[in-house]
Amino acid sequence: MAKIKVSIIGATGYVGAELVHGFAGHPEAELVHLTSKTFEGQHFSDVYPQFRGVCDKVLENIDYAQVAKDSDLVITALPHGVSSQTVPLLLENGTRVIDHSGDFRYKNLATYEKSYKLTHPHPELLTEAVYGLPELYREQLKTARLVANPGCYPTCSIIALKPFLEAGLIDTNSIIIDAVSGVTGAGRKSDLAYSFCELDEAFKPYGAVGHRHTTEINEQCSFLAGGDGNSIKVTFTPHLAPFKRGMLATIYAKPSERFTEVSASKIHEIYEKAYEGENFVRVLPDKTLPDVKAVNGSNYIEVNGTFDPETGMIKLFSAQDNLGKGAALQAIQAFNVMFGLDEATGLGHIIRGV
Amino acid sequence: MAKIKVSIIGATGYVGAELVHGFAGHPEAELVHLTSKTFEGQHFSDVYPQFRGVCDKVLENIDYAQVAKDSDLVITALPHGVSSQTVPLLLENGTRVIDHSGDFRYKNLATYEKSYKLTHPHPELLTEAVYGLPELYREQLKTARLVANPGCYPTCSIIALKPFLEAGLIDTNSIIIDAVSGVTGAGRKSDLAYSFCELDEAFKPYGAVGHRHTTEINEQCSFLAGGDGNSIKVTFTPHLAPFKRGMLATIYAKPSERFTEVSASKIHEIYEKAYEGENFVRVLPDKTLPDVKAVNGSNYIEVNGTFDPETGMIKLFSAQDNLGKGAALQAIQAFNVMFGLDEATGLGHIIRGV
Amino acid sequence: MAKIKVSIIGATGYVGAELVHGFAGHPEAELVHLTSKTFEGQHFSDVYPQFRGVCDKVLENIDYAQVAKDSDLVITALPHGVSSQTVPLLLENGTRVIDHSGDFRYKNLATYEKSYKLTHPHPELLTEAVYGLPELYREQLKTARLVANPGCYPTCSIIALKPFLEAGLIDTNSIIIDAVSGVTGAGRKSDLAYSFCELDEAFKPYGAVGHRHTTEINEQCSFLAGGDGNSIKVTFTPHLAPFKRGMLATIYAKPSERFTEVSASKIHEIYEKAYEGENFVRVLPDKTLPDVKAVNGSNYIEVNGTFDPETGMIKLFSAQDNLGKGAALQAIQAFNVMFGLDEATGLGHIIRGV
Amino acid sequence: MAKIKVSIIGATGYVGAELVHGFAGHPEAELVHLTSKTFEGQHFSDVYPQFRGVCDKVLENIDYAQVAKDSDLVITALPHGVSSQTVPLLLENGTRVIDHSGDFRYKNLATYEKSYKLTHPHPELLTEAVYGLPELYREQLKTARLVANPGCYPTCSIIALKPFLEAGLIDTNSIIIDAVSGVTGAGRKSDLAYSFCELDEAFKPYGAVGHRHTTEINEQCSFLAGGDGNSIKVTFTPHLAPFKRGMLATIYAKPSERFTEVSASKIHEIYEKAYEGENFVRVLPDKTLPDVKAVNGSNYIEVNGTFDPETGMIKLFSAQDNLGKGAALQAIQAFNVMFGLDEATGLGHIIRGV
Repeated sequence: MAKIKVSIIGATGYVGAELVHGFAGHPEAELVHLTSKTFEGQHFSDVYPQFRGVCDKVLENIDYAQVAKDSDLVITALPHGVSSQTVPLLLENGTRVIDHSGDFRYKNLATYEKSYKLTHPHPELLTEAVYGLPELYREQLKTARLVANPGCYPTCSIIALKPFLEAGLIDTNSIIIDAVSGVTGAGRKSDLAYSFCELDEAFKPYGAVGHRHTTEINEQCSFLAGGDGNSIKVTFTPHLAPFKRGMLATIYAKPSERFTEVSASKIHEIYEKAYEGENFVRVLPDKTLPDVKAVNGSNYIEVNGTFDPETGMIKLFSAQDNLGKGAALQAIQAFNVMFGLDEATGLGHIIRGV
Repeated sequence: MAKIKVSIIGATGYVGAELVHGFAGHPEAELVHLTSKTFEGQHFSDVYPQFRGVCDKVLENIDYAQVAKDSDLVITALPHGVSSQTVPLLLENGTRVIDHSGDFRYKNLATYEKSYKLTHPHPELLTEAVYGLPELYREQLKTARLVANPGCYPTCSIIALKPFLEAGLIDTNSIIIDAVSGVTGAGRKSDLAYSFCELDEAFKPYGAVGHRHTTEINEQCSFLAGGDGNSIKVTFTPHLAPFKRGMLATIYAKPSERFTEVSASKIHEIYEKAYEGENFVRVLPDKTLPDVKAVNGSNYIEVNGTFDPETGMIKLFSAQDNLGKGAALQAIQAFNVMFGLDEATGLGHIIRGV
Repeated sequence: MAKIKVSIIGATGYVGAELVHGFAGHPEAELVHLTSKTFEGQHFSDVYPQFRGVCDKVLENIDYAQVAKDSDLVITALPHGVSSQTVPLLLENGTRVIDHSGDFRYKNLATYEKSYKLTHPHPELLTEAVYGLPELYREQLKTARLVANPGCYPTCSIIALKPFLEAGLIDTNSIIIDAVSGVTGAGRKSDLAYSFCELDEAFKPYGAVGHRHTTEINEQCSFLAGGDGNSIKVTFTPHLAPFKRGMLATIYAKPSERFTEVSASKIHEIYEKAYEGENFVRVLPDKTLPDVKAVNGSNYIEVNGTFDPETGMIKLFSAQDNLGKGAALQAIQAFNVMFGLDEATGLGHIIRGV
Repeated sequence: MAKIKVSIIGATGYVGAELVHGFAGHPEAELVHLTSKTFEGQHFSDVYPQFRGVCDKVLENIDYAQVAKDSDLVITALPHGVSSQTVPLLLENGTRVIDHSGDFRYKNLATYEKSYKLTHPHPELLTEAVYGLPELYREQLKTARLVANPGCYPTCSIIALKPFLEAGLIDTNSIIIDAVSGVTGAGRKSDLAYSFCELDEAFKPYGAVGHRHTTEINEQCSFLAGGDGNSIKVTFTPHLAPFKRGMLATIYAKPSERFTEVSASKIHEIYEKAYEGENFVRVLPDKTLPDVKAVNGSNYIEVNGTFDPETGMIKLFSAQDNLGKGAALQAIQAFNVMFGLDEATGLGHIIRGV
């Protein structure tokens, strides 16, 4: 059978590299074009030496029409504001697209424009785009032409909150998301602030008010709770930790009146039921909490929760690899769904042994 | 002038080593006895080679009467349940004591006994003991015979919350403390769970319900708010991060009705005013948030806060070195106060250059 | 086609876990028994949570006859001295074996017994065993009943030296191997010396004289140079570095008289020619030197060299993952050869994207 | 007594920061001017937040005459090629100078000009400058007007080799120095190659031929061996390791005929004798080898050695902090000597407790 042709626009960032990694081992996909403005003409493996012998393709400058024509799917790993202008050029040439920016993640135009301080050149695409979280939008992904790959913080927040929002078990005014990311989350760049000597033995909050992922979380959580996208506002604080890959969310919420007999085991049970049969959501055993180490390099996301009887507070935890389920590998999961493959194709065994 | 004679019981744990470090450079103190059951007879610098030429004292098995007689101050770095039996033996021989365990940190006996699942053999000492946070109990420390050095999480939580609790500016039912510790917080031990290969590139919550420091935080916060020690219950979640030293607390609370016109700048201003003149509380510039890197190796604690106008939530942040202000160096600060020295003696320049 | 049945004895050490990782994604192999004395009855994924959903097999206590009968291949990851007694029990029950200890790596019995300070209970197996380095013994591996998987330091030393020894281009009395290993090389154990706080920001030599791998390197290098196993003695110094996985060897040797017109480019050329067509030996571009990061998680080994015209010294460099090409993944490479599969089956795409 | 006035030119690099750290706690010195082109007008503690409350001086653009007039000593932490032009401006205004570049470290002009590919504008100063290694040039430092602070690799190489070169115990044609540095050695800069994500879990050689420190080592070793500065050529290979501070040298050399009855203990004994009474050279106990962790943050350098009877090779080891004894703290040691203070003033207790 002919393989599905995939191209990556912006292949040399960390998300791009993880996409190349995932597709290089995918049995049903074939990488066609890898593009990079900065490294045009070099081999991908010149930029990422770990790929020598695995992916030595030459990086090209982009020709939208050609890339679209040659590809069954184009994945764009471009900055917001750039994607909103680039993706339409690909779509109009007849390819399907998974975009990694924030440009197509919102249904509510005003929320996007306020969050990103941009005017969207193609607001009609916000309606069409499917939010690429298979655990929420599996059906829509199957036929989607444009998929907006979720942000990393939104993925781990939404997966952790989903069963409780859908069942109305938490007070939606009480949600606090305290999250930690590894350094790859900041991207591949020459910046003193991300140098080894500045981050080793360091740990700090950043973007403590108004981080863009907040409104993305709000909108999806609102939908899950049956709202119009504007009904929930979470308190969100990201932190930067000295590891390369990984993300942990610690989420606080008060049980709603509907949630009677709250307990750690009950929370565990809700997760078990909600995610039964899911390929990549690991509901941990009762009393066991997530660790970013356990999801390093993979598309898995771990969840579990507990309850503090002294304060009446629910605590939910989720851990994922920010480049895995938080970005590139989740895009491959979506790709599998879009092209009618088993959702775990090429992903099931990607973990770290040690 | 004769130097003040100090002995350390349990000198070979990480807190003990940091005490030796601090006192080795202290101009007014002299280390007399260092004791260790495990390493009796060895040089301290055999156990900690970085001390060769700095502190080569021989580790002794403990003789309480002798140690007490020879010392103006004895610092105990022993497990809880052991300190409660050991400290009285020292006190009755006429020395003053700073204890590092949880055994003398509570005023409310029942809270201690429930938290530590122990019966206290000397409850009368709970009344006498002074909680060793100079920013709260400076006057009492001057004449204290027994000082209970605070826990690491309580120190950074209390310092961050103090101005707001004292002024009644936050809803005391709404406090959530999400905190992160470096690995030295777990102590010096042979344990697979703390091995390099298990913790490098890892990050996880632990003790997510019922961590003992919770009740210690509750009691002191309650006092600050004018209560009897039982009026406040915080939600507390500790995490373990892959660095050796450091602790960051991210604290969420709702403003009380009394706190009008809340803003990040206002919060900053409150900190500035509350800690004016303090030696070791660094109120960061407006909009600047703490980083554990900036306090590594020192007795400093950094604080600042912000406000999320979307959710009406106050966020307070504090960073300290868990072995510094969170343990050993804070004990030296208390020592300076106890013996009438300038509070910063021997501590002011202990920082990390890079 | 029926899959090849593989069992792992000692599956819960780091080498065992990497074997499980590799075989879990191998298209032609099936894991049958995983044994562990310590964790008998638990799921493999209880010990290594990253395997939840990937390998949840129950760990068994070993029944040699049964394991051998059920398996086309048994891989033993046991300590030396234990393997020499265990492996014969497996062989006599009709299975093939790849052993990870030093017990079958030597042809010269006296060298083994002196190096390991043990009397070998089955010296006849030393003759039969094939040293599991496909780049040297590919033909013999095809029919081998017993394969001795090479040590990690020997693998990276031998691969780097092979072309020069075979062609007589270096003075065999001048070889110095200065090597660095990540912490997984020490195994999975509760030991203060390998705790995070003891190894973070540390770097040190160990076993500076008489490390056992020295004689293993000597024997194989001697064979490559046409000797009897005793003709070469290298100077070898291992070091421990603060990363989990990876190994770098920096090798110094003087050119022999036969090596005329020595230069970096010439050394590069020799490598290119020697390893043309090899699946897992990456000869880096001229002037580019190996980095352990580039082989992390994979079965690749990188080599290149340079020449110092001022001192007339050749420098050869090789980098591998100590658990990959240095242990478990190399065993899978040998497995592929032993069972007539493409040598890269299941290994080609195992790399780290970032 | 009036304090000695010290200024630092180029105070915001890592060496500059470590100088500020050391002098901030120095009882006999006072920092007068701190200069920085990039950060002029900012507080030093804006650039290095760990210094808030410790050193908040304003960074100035440089006025050579003024700085020289106001200072008993000026320390320059400038790039090579810049120091050679700047230092004379300071000297002619009557101050003494310690320079951190390579510009004044050589006696042999041709060696400098070849190594640095520069024409020296003030070759007469090469004769006057004292190489700032107190263990070699203590007497000359006392009256020196210009001190060239040694390179980091040269310091650890020379201290390890000195006793053997002076006594003619090693074959000077056989010296190989294999060394490893922490990342601060590369300086404080925005460079992708030194970003956290590129260096975490990485380890690699660099500058494998022709690193500038080679000729600096050669010249000083030659002097120690009684030569003219050109008699010794060492083979030198630096590596970059994932820790912030620290440097380890592993040195190989053959014993000369004069060195009879070579053994590890004999080597230890030679070190003991050679460095008896030295403040900062830690000769480790027999059989104990250096670890960079043990010198982290300090001016100490650890040495010891061993002997491989199988190959007849001597192995010498030294560990230091590349910013400590390898740069800034060694400059303070030299400062103490230059100004007639006890050599350990302000340095003796600067270590890391944990």
